[in-house]
Amino acid sequence: MAVVLRAHPQLAATLVLLLSVLSSAAGGKLLVVPLDGSHWLSMREVLDVLSQRGHEVVVVAPEISLHIKPTKNFVMKMYPVPFTQEELNNAFLRTSQEVFEGGSFLERFLKTYDRLKNASAMFLSTCAHLLSNKELIQYLQESKFDAVFTDPILPCGQILADHLSVPSVVFVQQIPCGLEFEATQCPNPPSYVPRIFMSSSDHMTFTERVKNHLVGISGNWLCYLFYLKYENLASEFLHKEVTILELFSKASIWLMRYDFVFEYPRPIMPNMVYVGGINCEQKEPLPKEFEAIVNASGEHGIVVFSLGSMVSEIPMKKATEIAEALGTVPQTVLWRYTGQTPPNLPKNVKLVKWLPQNDLLAHPKTRAFITHGGSHGVYEGICNAVPMVLMPLFGDQMDNAKRVESRGAGLTLNILEMTSKDISTALKAVINDKKYKENIKRLSDLHLDRPIHPLDLAVYWVEFVMRHKGAPHLRPAAHDLNWFQYHSLDVIAFLLAVVLLSLFISVKCCMCCCRRCCCKKGRTRKPTKSKSH
Amino acid sequence: MAVVLRAHPQLAATLVLLLSVLSSAAGGKLLVVPLDGSHWLSMREVLDVLSQRGHEVVVVAPEISLHIKPTKNFVMKMYPVPFTQEELNNAFLRTSQEVFEGGSFLERFLKTYDRLKNASAMFLSTCAHLLSNKELIQYLQESKFDAVFTDPILPCGQILADHLSVPSVVFVQQIPCGLEFEATQCPNPPSYVPRIFMSSSDHMTFTERVKNHLVGISGNWLCYLFYLKYENLASEFLHKEVTILELFSKASIWLMRYDFVFEYPRPIMPNMVYVGGINCEQKEPLPKEFEAIVNASGEHGIVVFSLGSMVSEIPMKKATEIAEALGTVPQTVLWRYTGQTPPNLPKNVKLVKWLPQNDLLAHPKTRAFITHGGSHGVYEGICNAVPMVLMPLFGDQMDNAKRVESRGAGLTLNILEMTSKDISTALKAVINDKKYKENIKRLSDLHLDRPIHPLDLAVYWVEFVMRHKGAPHLRPAAHDLNWFQYHSLDVIAFLLAVVLLSLFISVKCCMCCCRRCCCKKGRTRKPTKSKSH
Repeated sequence: MAVVLRAHPQLAATLVLLLSVLSSAAGGKLLVVPLDGSHWLSMREVLDVLSQRGHEVVVVAPEISLHIKPTKNFVMKMYPVPFTQEELNNAFLRTSQEVFEGGSFLERFLKTYDRLKNASAMFLSTCAHLLSNKELIQYLQESKFDAVFTDPILPCGQILADHLSVPSVVFVQQIPCGLEFEATQCPNPPSYVPRIFMSSSDHMTFTERVKNHLVGISGNWLCYLFYLKYENLASEFLHKEVTILELFSKASIWLMRYDFVFEYPRPIMPNMVYVGGINCEQKEPLPKEFEAIVNASGEHGIVVFSLGSMVSEIPMKKATEIAEALGTVPQTVLWRYTGQTPPNLPKNVKLVKWLPQNDLLAHPKTRAFITHGGSHGVYEGICNAVPMVLMPLFGDQMDNAKRVESRGAGLTLNILEMTSKDISTALKAVINDKKYKENIKRLSDLHLDRPIHPLDLAVYWVEFVMRHKGAPHLRPAAHDLNWFQYHSLDVIAFLLAVVLLSLFISVKCCMCCCRRCCCKKGRTRKPTKSKSH
Repeated sequence: MAVVLRAHPQLAATLVLLLSVLSSAAGGKLLVVPLDGSHWLSMREVLDVLSQRGHEVVVVAPEISLHIKPTKNFVMKMYPVPFTQEELNNAFLRTSQEVFEGGSFLERFLKTYDRLKNASAMFLSTCAHLLSNKELIQYLQESKFDAVFTDPILPCGQILADHLSVPSVVFVQQIPCGLEFEATQCPNPPSYVPRIFMSSSDHMTFTERVKNHLVGISGNWLCYLFYLKYENLASEFLHKEVTILELFSKASIWLMRYDFVFEYPRPIMPNMVYVGGINCEQKEPLPKEFEAIVNASGEHGIVVFSLGSMVSEIPMKKATEIAEALGTVPQTVLWRYTGQTPPNLPKNVKLVKWLPQNDLLAHPKTRAFITHGGSHGVYEGICNAVPMVLMPLFGDQMDNAKRVESRGAGLTLNILEMTSKDISTALKAVINDKKYKENIKRLSDLHLDRPIHPLDLAVYWVEFVMRHKGAPHLRPAAHDLNWFQYHSLDVIAFLLAVVLLSLFISVKCCMCCCRRCCCKKGRTRKPTKSKSH
């Protein structure tokens, strides 16, 4: 053993880490303020590990939610909210329905605006009900937490962290208006970092760069408008004037569900930790019914098809078109779909209400993945090296699809305009054209080749903040500068003034000298002239 | 075992990493173009591990050097250079001698300029002799390396990487003119990132910020002048016009000997890997003679004193003053010094020609560390939580001293002006005032609390580049933009033009309307007027 360790010092170091991982697992106390929906699902994986490592995990969540349900791993503190489960489900169900409803741009814009307004009101009311729940707040105050772990899309967790004077770790894929970069003082050059909803790659044309600038500016405004009500709520609750940006700038560590195999390389900050692909860790054996389907698929293998948990039903016309296309490939297609069965469902297509997506994608017989392009699904596709056909619906899914397509690892379809033939062509291409498989395999190899698994890294940094009461050594001094100091505008103005003043004085001196010379010449000439006369 | 793994999924993940660490150790071929001096010492530690992991490490070095000596771990390819060992030693010896010679600012500036000119000429000639060594170059071409590992202070390794079309990993603490940030497209705001030789913290006054700007600008010019001759050399050798910046922008991974416990937090890029503290890994038991001295030091313990390997002798007057100060503390002082013994050497001071610095600092009886503030020494001080008295001599040592002092972990003395009393006061303070120990302990705890040891991380990324033939997924698109595109000046100009044009058209329209209104009024008034007449 000693010989092996000497020959492999890094093995020795790994053993030391391993022992420290075991020994450092000592009961801290973590307050979790999560966001409902798919965000919760990957956060829960981190919490499960933290709980197994002996920490007391206290999750504060509304009584009515989509995915956050009590579990024995955590202490769940539920608080009442003024809406019913049905109202919540409907609000989210509408999102997917609206995608397929079509209509003019104005109609769709107004519908989206209306929907977002409703969802925002629901979120805000949830946050307000948490902060006004005196009993719960008192319990939190008395609990003496070591850290707060929260999703920054809603600032409620960060407001609580400030109130309890506890350091915080935030867990985020991206905030639509780029608040994470402002709050961390991270440079975010619009010349090659595409803004969200831009569907651009990092190589933009002049027009795209102009658009990127405008989207960035309007994003700032949207951010301001969205968070304004939370600012009022926070100021009232904390009894001091605060902005949401100020609150988030206090976060110790930003765990970014982000990997540069998928995202475009860009400047980052030392307190950002990249944990993209955190969700495709645990691989379980397939349930028997799925195992049977996969085994029966023969040499052609299977295709996994899911538009995510938000889409329960799609219009029958579209479903029929999709079904027709799926019949044109020899693969068995496992389609997660809870809507009405299309009448033309081909024999090779199996409709299921649920499927073990990551485990199916991990199966060597899987040939392609038809997905809406949610970030979780895309990372599972990358992890398991399965080429994709992307049908983005809303939010950042267009951006995700663009990223996969720009890497040559999949093809994107417009869900409203695609015909049966388009679907069939795209699906056949990603299955049969080797370049898609090669590209996704290359991405997958790069993604999986990392010194430490993202789940371990996330757990490590949450515990780091708990151990050290934050990470102040990673906080840049930029936070203590105002915007014109940060951009050195005062220094530039001063240096410019010095240069101009020096120029002015030099010119004045030259002019003065010239004048004197001229005068002298004039004076010396005059007598000559008079003499000549 | 299975139960343990289930309870600790990260333990399972660590085991997987551990196995992959063992299994992935398969013979690649690495070309190393190092820089002589202390830079070589920490690079060698990485190479030792790479060699133990079964890679063939080929080191290309001049026959005459300070520290690079043949070892059985690597294939050493030595090439002749047109200077002798004595000339090289003298060139470096002069550096330390000049520090103590004093003189007016102009005298010192001219001396430094002269010395740097000589050293530069020596470095350039070394590089030129490598590139013109046809036999060696042919051997390198035939060797089919997987990657080049080099120190970017001298661009010779990067020139070779380009010539051999092999990806490169660079290993750097910092390049005096900040070329590493330009080459990686890493934002480097002068408002809070102090430039080298500034001796500023990240919280600068207005005057310091102005100075920082000017130092930055002059740094760019110095960089240009320093690398100009290498550019000519590279263009000639590669048979194409290249700049050194272009060559370095192709480096796949930048291993930065940098840790934010010591350096100020600043923007970074995804292809920068932080391996600060890489040099204080292996702790050996103390040699018997040192063990005896330490044990005999009693309850007061010891002080470790070294001004680095570059200082062999200091003027007798200064040495006497230092000796006098060292006599005022009850600790045993181990002083690494090869010069003439001062006549007043107190009993508690032991002069030694060499000392196992890191191992002595790691001993629990060590109370303080008197150092010149070289980055290696400072990291060893931090690793082992020993408060420091810093006597910076030249180069980045002033900056390092400022960083330690600004963290309250040590005190800085001006080596030219310090009196015996100053040294004594500073030494007593860092030994007896608990705050220094507390601060360095806090820094040390933060520094050592990392998910993976910097040496493992460095080895990992070198192997990553060898495995994947580079790391193109970490290369930002900024490299493909020119400077006005990068800063979006074209977009800003366009948007400004649009705004101004819109304003102009609006104003013109308004004026036109007003004129028409006035005309109408005028016209309607005129007849009235004529009527009234």
